[in-house]
Amino acid sequence: MAVGDSVPRIEAAAKVTGRARFAGDFTLPGMRIAKYLRSSIAHGRVTSIDVSKAKVLPGVDGVFTFADVPKIDFATAGHAYSLDPRARDVEDRMLLTDHIRYHGDEIAIVVAANDLIARQALELIEVEYQELPPILTAEQAYQIDAEDLHPGKGTTSVNECGAHEYVLGNVEQSLADADHLLNGRYTTQMVQHCHMETHVGYAYMDDLDYIVVVSSTQIPHICRRIVAQSLDMPLHQIRVIKPAIGGGFGNKQDVVLEPMLAFLTKKLGGLPVRIEMTREENMVATRVRHPFDVKIKAGVNNDGTLKGLSLDVLSNTGAYASHGHSICKAAGSKLAPLYPRTALRYNAKTFYSTLPAGGAMRGYGSPQIIFAVDNMMEQAAAKIGMDPVDFRIKNAAVAGDINPLSGKAIDSCGLIECLQKGRDILNWDQRRKELQQQTGRVRRGVGVACFAYGSGTYPAGVEIAGARMVLNQDGSANLHVGAVEIGQGSDTVFAQMAAERLGISVDMIRVVSTQDTDSTPFDPGAFASRQTYVASPAVAGAAEKLRKKILDHAALMLEKKAETLDIHQKDIIERTSGEKLLSLQDLSLDAYYHKERGGQITAEMSTKMTANAYAYGATFTEIEVDLDMCRIEIKKIWNIHDAGKIINPLLARGQVEGGVGMGIAGALAEEMLINAKNGKILNGNLLDYKMPTCLDLPDIDCDFVETDESTAPFGNKSLGEPPLLSVAPAIRNALLHATSVQVDSLPMSPKALFIHFRDAGLLG
Amino acid sequence: MAVGDSVPRIEAAAKVTGRARFAGDFTLPGMRIAKYLRSSIAHGRVTSIDVSKAKVLPGVDGVFTFADVPKIDFATAGHAYSLDPRARDVEDRMLLTDHIRYHGDEIAIVVAANDLIARQALELIEVEYQELPPILTAEQAYQIDAEDLHPGKGTTSVNECGAHEYVLGNVEQSLADADHLLNGRYTTQMVQHCHMETHVGYAYMDDLDYIVVVSSTQIPHICRRIVAQSLDMPLHQIRVIKPAIGGGFGNKQDVVLEPMLAFLTKKLGGLPVRIEMTREENMVATRVRHPFDVKIKAGVNNDGTLKGLSLDVLSNTGAYASHGHSICKAAGSKLAPLYPRTALRYNAKTFYSTLPAGGAMRGYGSPQIIFAVDNMMEQAAAKIGMDPVDFRIKNAAVAGDINPLSGKAIDSCGLIECLQKGRDILNWDQRRKELQQQTGRVRRGVGVACFAYGSGTYPAGVEIAGARMVLNQDGSANLHVGAVEIGQGSDTVFAQMAAERLGISVDMIRVVSTQDTDSTPFDPGAFASRQTYVASPAVAGAAEKLRKKILDHAALMLEKKAETLDIHQKDIIERTSGEKLLSLQDLSLDAYYHKERGGQITAEMSTKMTANAYAYGATFTEIEVDLDMCRIEIKKIWNIHDAGKIINPLLARGQVEGGVGMGIAGALAEEMLINAKNGKILNGNLLDYKMPTCLDLPDIDCDFVETDESTAPFGNKSLGEPPLLSVAPAIRNALLHATSVQVDSLPMSPKALFIHFRDAGLLG
Repeated sequence: MAVGDSVPRIEAAAKVTGRARFAGDFTLPGMRIAKYLRSSIAHGRVTSIDVSKAKVLPGVDGVFTFADVPKIDFATAGHAYSLDPRARDVEDRMLLTDHIRYHGDEIAIVVAANDLIARQALELIEVEYQELPPILTAEQAYQIDAEDLHPGKGTTSVNECGAHEYVLGNVEQSLADADHLLNGRYTTQMVQHCHMETHVGYAYMDDLDYIVVVSSTQIPHICRRIVAQSLDMPLHQIRVIKPAIGGGFGNKQDVVLEPMLAFLTKKLGGLPVRIEMTREENMVATRVRHPFDVKIKAGVNNDGTLKGLSLDVLSNTGAYASHGHSICKAAGSKLAPLYPRTALRYNAKTFYSTLPAGGAMRGYGSPQIIFAVDNMMEQAAAKIGMDPVDFRIKNAAVAGDINPLSGKAIDSCGLIECLQKGRDILNWDQRRKELQQQTGRVRRGVGVACFAYGSGTYPAGVEIAGARMVLNQDGSANLHVGAVEIGQGSDTVFAQMAAERLGISVDMIRVVSTQDTDSTPFDPGAFASRQTYVASPAVAGAAEKLRKKILDHAALMLEKKAETLDIHQKDIIERTSGEKLLSLQDLSLDAYYHKERGGQITAEMSTKMTANAYAYGATFTEIEVDLDMCRIEIKKIWNIHDAGKIINPLLARGQVEGGVGMGIAGALAEEMLINAKNGKILNGNLLDYKMPTCLDLPDIDCDFVETDESTAPFGNKSLGEPPLLSVAPAIRNALLHATSVQVDSLPMSPKALFIHFRDAGLLG
Repeated sequence: MAVGDSVPRIEAAAKVTGRARFAGDFTLPGMRIAKYLRSSIAHGRVTSIDVSKAKVLPGVDGVFTFADVPKIDFATAGHAYSLDPRARDVEDRMLLTDHIRYHGDEIAIVVAANDLIARQALELIEVEYQELPPILTAEQAYQIDAEDLHPGKGTTSVNECGAHEYVLGNVEQSLADADHLLNGRYTTQMVQHCHMETHVGYAYMDDLDYIVVVSSTQIPHICRRIVAQSLDMPLHQIRVIKPAIGGGFGNKQDVVLEPMLAFLTKKLGGLPVRIEMTREENMVATRVRHPFDVKIKAGVNNDGTLKGLSLDVLSNTGAYASHGHSICKAAGSKLAPLYPRTALRYNAKTFYSTLPAGGAMRGYGSPQIIFAVDNMMEQAAAKIGMDPVDFRIKNAAVAGDINPLSGKAIDSCGLIECLQKGRDILNWDQRRKELQQQTGRVRRGVGVACFAYGSGTYPAGVEIAGARMVLNQDGSANLHVGAVEIGQGSDTVFAQMAAERLGISVDMIRVVSTQDTDSTPFDPGAFASRQTYVASPAVAGAAEKLRKKILDHAALMLEKKAETLDIHQKDIIERTSGEKLLSLQDLSLDAYYHKERGGQITAEMSTKMTANAYAYGATFTEIEVDLDMCRIEIKKIWNIHDAGKIINPLLARGQVEGGVGMGIAGALAEEMLINAKNGKILNGNLLDYKMPTCLDLPDIDCDFVETDESTAPFGNKSLGEPPLLSVAPAIRNALLHATSVQVDSLPMSPKALFIHFRDAGLLG
């Protein structure tokens, strides 16, 4: 059957042959090009702007500045709307601004006949600034005399975007009573998603008050709401269409271009207007991963019990909230289901600064927290002289543990099996011993790290999904899902699920991959590793409904009871004997075209998921360190995942390979560099921003521990974000093993390693 | 409430501001232009074709001839598929042909970078023909030695495309027994639809085996099937999208360009290919109204009883069947419900000829038959000295009469009231007397004619319709209908119906007007005056389902019983007190975003109509004839319609005005002229084809007799085609009244009148 098979991506051929159409592959007659005027400073105010020369340049349709945009604050984060006003995203942005908060902030925009004229017009705009010192870190941001970047927004302190704390168990007592109390401080860097397709979209009007936005977005239905809100229009006057997407990783879980596109077409009488970000714009003016500064106290007993963990986390959200504090908050919530028997305190604050705005990025804060916690775990294991794997196993969650944060039992958990499997695969125990106390320029080490990660946002957010199926006249079926294919393969697994429940083969399911808010069933979109988990009840439900309707019609045609019939591939069969009674095609033709009975057979489901299954996993790696070259080479890297039942092993493996690659990149190479004096971005392009290519990456291996999650119809759990979560700390721990050098900040680039190795006296 | 109100067209603003996008308003990067090579002869064979020079012209992507196309015969008529093979359309056409059957037949096609290169390439193709004599009329076509235009197709006789006969009652006896037996022969001309937007479309592939066709079509779902069939592809690999349409009148109820577009993009590896017909191509290479040649025998008694009618009808379908004999057959079926107590014989045959192919055109054969029958009615009334209105009233259908063709009782019938109302409005009795026996150059006359017309194709075809509704987050609702807006206003009346049943105002219904076969509920399309009748149960049903789901959710939120609640405009109210309890918007937000309960509220219905309501009506006119100028001026023209309940008086009036205008055009002016020697079309353009403009048309008035048709949820019946049906015979009868000149063929152009008036000795 379909679920569990390695079905190749259904859109693979379209993508590799170039037939798939992305937002940038469309045009409309008369389409105009818009380009932003971006600030050349990182912090300050525009004191004067003169667009008169730009406006009269032939071919220019309009020049709009901060003075021309609606005075409506809106939030760009792609969250489903919340009925609770306190849970909504911070509305701290207008379409354009004269208050410059980062290097590249949007002051004005030009609309012109083509890209060249638009660029020429930008050159003709004269701007004067009052420049202010940059605010680069959370610590700088909360100084009492710091410039307030968003007066009246955020919470109590200056530049504080959000804050919260949870305490589970008696943490103070646990720390005090523990055999050992350890302290650590860990920091992570700002990185960019670097999806292949930059942000691109266009908008037009095909009626008086009705705006169509075609966009490379992970969140078409949410985008519709935010565009409406940003222009103060009724929601039904906005239509968002999502064609094929060339990657997002969370960066397209923000509405970056869409409100502006809608504003421009409205201003210009419905003219089609397009914006395509250059790579350089995409590097700075979209969202980045929040730098975290994490202080941990850990209490550990000699028997390996992790008694307590206390974290103080500072998150730096940059110029605008975007997802704001919710990232730091969400990251904290993944600790309780990982070490549910440990007392936990998680105190977190998110601050504005003059960096590019932090937003959703694969892992949503967890890579930062796991880097910190797993490094601390390594220190703790070392402290008590326990094997790091044993130490993790000792404290790891097992099925049935109560997640102290939700109060609910953990339904499925294969974490210990993941750790054991990885230990076996890497021949951990032997390599751990063999590689003790090496000398010489080239040394090896093994490392481990592990994680827990949710499947969706519930209960923080609503988890709604929708699917609709239509039986075609040829016996195939169309499947519409609100969940969004952004390159991760979701359409394929949904086709498998629908085929499985319907009883036909996957190639007879046609997934309508383009989401169109006018017609596509509602679903907030692609984020939070939610889709195959949250949307599976909708897909399964719609398929089951369709199946029932098909069998009912078969019963009518065959004058038999529906319960005695079944669907098998292209036929209606007798359930017990398997005898073919009627082809699905003939059934469908009868349903459509019989003059009196039947009708088009369709089924639709909108479902809400009120659980949040935790996926687990671990990274095991063996690295080789060249001390003189300050270089880490990954010899082996294995991710072992408990993602519940695997719907599609081929795609699951692909998902892990991509995620581990991204994890290695963030561990060893990527970092957005800032000039500390003026806050300007130093490497906002793919030449200077060091992103590994496939030639730089090692072979990546993975394996799965299949549990059966009872809250999902097919037993599956998240696998979108998890692959990268534990990669960096595993490498860091292997480095520690190889060299005894403790690196507590990312990235472990040659530049950073040089300082560490030099300070440790390891350089030759 | 909404139904019955004169709601302005919901797409009016989009259309008058130019924002509505038609198929010709789109483009895609790299889109190619295709142009047909059309035969320069009307009948014969291509003996040689050389495309070698065209193929190597820079900018040419491909040249395809009849030798390159699939050897698959297909039918182009836009009928829903029939489970009965005998009822399917005649498959007599391939994509291109070397057997030339009309002047303009399609031999080859060029695809090039632009229109200019395509035209240049056409010039470079060298063709040689063997020319044959044209076959212009049905009489010529059935000669035993006539060239067989479609060997192996059609029925028994040479060039016979179809034939049938029905006999209701003892016609021979009735004619023999009648006090008077009358004979007549009436002929009608070939006319073109002349919709503003010519045939235009494009196709592309966004996957390996998946073709998208965007087309100006009345029948997107049928188009999908025929394209699949013409290329021997599975139906689910074809997607047809219908944007705004600039008129069709039946000419876009044929797949004229779509199979070729799909073929070309497939041949060219998925490249987008576009065809836009010139007006000149549209005149000859699309469909025309079938010329009819009708012989009638009528038996009438002195008391005014029409005892029997016997018709022998020859229909000329031209080069290809298209709708073939079904038009002539359908026209015959409208007589029985008009004069149900009269014995009827209807013998009809349809022949191929070398004229442009006849197809569906507003009235679908009825204008021709009604012209003949109503002229005969006038003769009969004169014969027995009875007032023409009285004579019609005497024989007219009344509710409860059994339609002898279907055996079912006529549900609603306001024909007599229509005739009485028209008589009063026109002051008929007095004018009839005043205008007896005029002399002089300028004379006046009054005329009447009447009709019956079905609502849809049942039981000849399946009548299926689909609607889906979605409650938006702002309390508005989207309405998807399979029925197709082609300029007639159907979207507006569906919005009214949905609003009425839902209890909200029309402006809170957003009709998704673009049909997309991937997602739009199934409906065969816009034809047969079917949509507001056949689709109303689907729209009403979906709205009622949605209403129930909304009230169920309200009950959940309010902890009240759903039966005690109602929807009124933007609120949920208590049914009895009318008290506002909750806004629809808040309800919807809760349904979407409450974390545990609810879901997106949607509803879908696919319904089949198993009745066919007859609409009735009459035209009354007073004309002034200038004998010397051979010119008829219409002084007054009133159409009085029984279209059941009127959903939208404003749009109903618009529909009547357009239809009467088209009727006047066909009565007095329009005619496609053919060179009798070689079969070439003489006036295939809008300069030489005399189509009246609004300056040429009189003021058109109308009124309604509202009956309540019980087979339709809102009591409505057809009004799309009916307005033109009785126009020509009413004018003809007024001409007879004014001048005593009996004109039995159309058009009554100055040229034709000159001959009549000269022969009658009336010219000064």
